[in-house]
Amino acid sequence: MNRRGNIVSFRPDVRVLDATIRDGGLVNNFYFDDEFIRALYLANVKAGVDYMEFGYKASKDIFSPDKFGKWKFCNEADIRAIVGDNNTDLKISVMADVGRTDFRRDIIPRSESVIDMVRVATYINTIPAALEIVEYCHELGYETTVNIMAISNASDVDIDGALELICQSHVDGIYLVDSYGSLYPEQIARLSEKYLSYGEAAGKYIGMHAHNNQQLAFANTIESMSLGVSYLDATVCSMGRGAGNCAMELLLGFFKNPKYNITPVLRFIEDYMLPLKASGVVWGYDVPYLLTGRLNRHPSSAIEFIRDGKTDYCDFYQELLDRD
Amino acid sequence: MNRRGNIVSFRPDVRVLDATIRDGGLVNNFYFDDEFIRALYLANVKAGVDYMEFGYKASKDIFSPDKFGKWKFCNEADIRAIVGDNNTDLKISVMADVGRTDFRRDIIPRSESVIDMVRVATYINTIPAALEIVEYCHELGYETTVNIMAISNASDVDIDGALELICQSHVDGIYLVDSYGSLYPEQIARLSEKYLSYGEAAGKYIGMHAHNNQQLAFANTIESMSLGVSYLDATVCSMGRGAGNCAMELLLGFFKNPKYNITPVLRFIEDYMLPLKASGVVWGYDVPYLLTGRLNRHPSSAIEFIRDGKTDYCDFYQELLDRD
Repeated sequence: MNRRGNIVSFRPDVRVLDATIRDGGLVNNFYFDDEFIRALYLANVKAGVDYMEFGYKASKDIFSPDKFGKWKFCNEADIRAIVGDNNTDLKISVMADVGRTDFRRDIIPRSESVIDMVRVATYINTIPAALEIVEYCHELGYETTVNIMAISNASDVDIDGALELICQSHVDGIYLVDSYGSLYPEQIARLSEKYLSYGEAAGKYIGMHAHNNQQLAFANTIESMSLGVSYLDATVCSMGRGAGNCAMELLLGFFKNPKYNITPVLRFIEDYMLPLKASGVVWGYDVPYLLTGRLNRHPSSAIEFIRDGKTDYCDFYQELLDRD
Repeated sequence: MNRRGNIVSFRPDVRVLDATIRDGGLVNNFYFDDEFIRALYLANVKAGVDYMEFGYKASKDIFSPDKFGKWKFCNEADIRAIVGDNNTDLKISVMADVGRTDFRRDIIPRSESVIDMVRVATYINTIPAALEIVEYCHELGYETTVNIMAISNASDVDIDGALELICQSHVDGIYLVDSYGSLYPEQIARLSEKYLSYGEAAGKYIGMHAHNNQQLAFANTIESMSLGVSYLDATVCSMGRGAGNCAMELLLGFFKNPKYNITPVLRFIEDYMLPLKASGVVWGYDVPYLLTGRLNRHPSSAIEFIRDGKTDYCDFYQELLDRD
């Protein structure tokens, strides 16, 4: 393997994306108050974070605005109420899910928007639909990525086919997404090299989005980075669905680049994340997530198990095995 | 780097050591009740764990038996009260700390003991004293290891010197110990290769004892294993000083060797670890440990910070920096 840089160097191509609202919103149905969002925005600016993802561009025909907080939809006006014209170095991203977005209606030209990037989340069998959104957003002037989810369930042949197809598009970046938190660093390394070989030939950067089911989100993120993956997702206190993500505070602590600063994030944790946790919002590594991660399953059954206050881990494990 | 085996293979040389009582005892001053210890012993036997460390052989002149639970001292009779003659495949280990053990008084010949292994914990500047204990225990018939602590503070030259010295002894194994949880997988890999090169030349196995300050204990353990390190320490629910250790349930979940079985450990967590946590015993990853780990410091200030119920992470971080 071809490592780039070492523990004391820094790579100028690295970009950090804060996905706290977007992945964390899956925990609390996107009900964050504006003060929280504004404080996170300011913390990210001060911390040198490169992108902040505000949420989804979800279809209001599919998801009722009565049942979700506003960051499920990311109306232009709602983002502007936080950031104004965003006269900072922090770029703003939103995510669009294939099949769950009215992108033609809801995504306006970049010249009229404070949004800089649209990330398109897709399963491996819906990539043509993802590329339709990518091309639309690219035409409108946005930076775009394709985030292939649940990659641990895909075969090598399918991944090769997907990457070939994506590399023919105008997309700027391709994300490796370990949705189930089931991949070990050795597997992340192998996949990173595959993504990088396609990406480098086609001039696309590669990103990493990890989940923490086996306490490997941070390890997998820095493993992929050491091989050349450059866009790194993290969330404050790992906030995200189920076991959550790579912790922003761990990632910022790792960097040697003086551009990044952990202190504003520590302050944000003190002032905002601890009260959020104390209010009863639950996420983060726990035994049931280890079990779904190990078995390469969607975390939904573990989320339900924890929500129900259950602790009979043995029975849960047997149930998971019975579903094979 | 020369990886041995891959994600679907298993290495017959691997040995798992459960250090829950020994490292976890540092959290609750070794006050475990006998039922807990017996249940853990039976869980380890059923799970296929290779060694169980019952605690320390601490000097009663230095540590008062009034102020610590019995596993600080590991009297022969106390271990036998749990395991009888230990007619199982599980081996029993104890740890002796250089300068804090009356080994000549307290360690009896192996032929009269249920203990199989004595692990000697040492800083790099007390290795001659560690080897004195090793040779004594070796003469008595025990398997022995030297565990060099706080290795993240040692220079390469000193580590080379230490390994050369240790390799001239009768010790069976040498442990790489990341006491402060400050090392990244890339550094663990480099150190593992160094230890292995000395160990292989001298016929000593290499072990890994990781701490979880940066959520890297599991990742570092499997990284070292993939390079040839074979004795792996873990604790149930990561129980151990400060941020704790590599979680046994993560490690057993990783193995492909059918000898190992995660289910008895899951049952033990349900029945014993959850009540222990609910009783107010506190350990595990938290922001202050990330900060001491990142700065390569002993976790004591973070333990105190958490014990005092503090959450002013920024101030704590500045205080740590001021101590440079």
